[in-house]
Amino acid sequence: MIYQGKPNGPICHIGSETCYYTSVFDLKEHQQVEGNKLALSTLYSLGSTISQRKAELAAEQNGKPSWTKRLLLDNMLLCSKIREEADELCQTLEENEDKSRTAAEMADVLYHAMVLLANKDVKIEDVMQVLRQRFSQSGVETKRGRISQG
Amino acid sequence: MIYQGKPNGPICHIGSETCYYTSVFDLKEHQQVEGNKLALSTLYSLGSTISQRKAELAAEQNGKPSWTKRLLLDNMLLCSKIREEADELCQTLEENEDKSRTAAEMADVLYHAMVLLANKDVKIEDVMQVLRQRFSQSGVETKRGRISQG
Repeated sequence: MIYQGKPNGPICHIGSETCYYTSVFDLKEHQQVEGNKLALSTLYSLGSTISQRKAELAAEQNGKPSWTKRLLLDNMLLCSKIREEADELCQTLEENEDKSRTAAEMADVLYHAMVLLANKDVKIEDVMQVLRQRFSQSGVETKRGRISQG
Repeated sequence: MIYQGKPNGPICHIGSETCYYTSVFDLKEHQQVEGNKLALSTLYSLGSTISQRKAELAAEQNGKPSWTKRLLLDNMLLCSKIREEADELCQTLEENEDKSRTAAEMADVLYHAMVLLANKDVKIEDVMQVLRQRFSQSGVETKRGRISQG
């Protein structure tokens, strides 16, 4: 007996939608899913969606318009949004706004910054690799501390 | 026969250091690891480190100084760093800098933004939840498109 279900959030204990490389839905929809060796955790899934929009633009199969496509086509708009969302994230601390506003603004920062990564062909894994390297060299903290004390 | 090793990066196929909830090393070091039900993927691991620094500040067991502690104690400094790093991330696109600069600046944005999350007691999981909800409601894109066309 097989049950089919659409997840409303993560299923895997690690926070991803699936423990496997890609979802059956994506395989059926797209046949070839770019980066299908990656588990579709939230950030990877977001990155994959943005990359699809970029591929659609490149192929001039524009399909339906999307905000992501507008951002990919307009560097000035994208950068102004990233600066604006970072500013709004800071305001949630400066103006003591509630936690849900902070989570929402951080989501905005992440989404827009990930469009910039796609634009530059940088993968989120590369960013994680930078973070891991810094931590293994006794941390961002030590390095930063040294710089700012220096 | 048991081999012990220190990972130099992710071991699990999903990109985390371990498939299990926490590492033996952390259990030995700290006995009680905060949030030990979370796999120590890079962001969770970073979040956990920042939370430890915050706990040390609260307990006035200041231990060694760290950049994270300075940021946690100084909202103005933290916010100015977040805005500065977001600006530098944008510059990598505007000034066509290389991909490694983009990855490094994104890492800086993420690290400093996560210190703000810790300051506000917001978990990275809450941010991911916001992103998932937006995507399941036919996406950030549709919503954003509507707003900007509206």
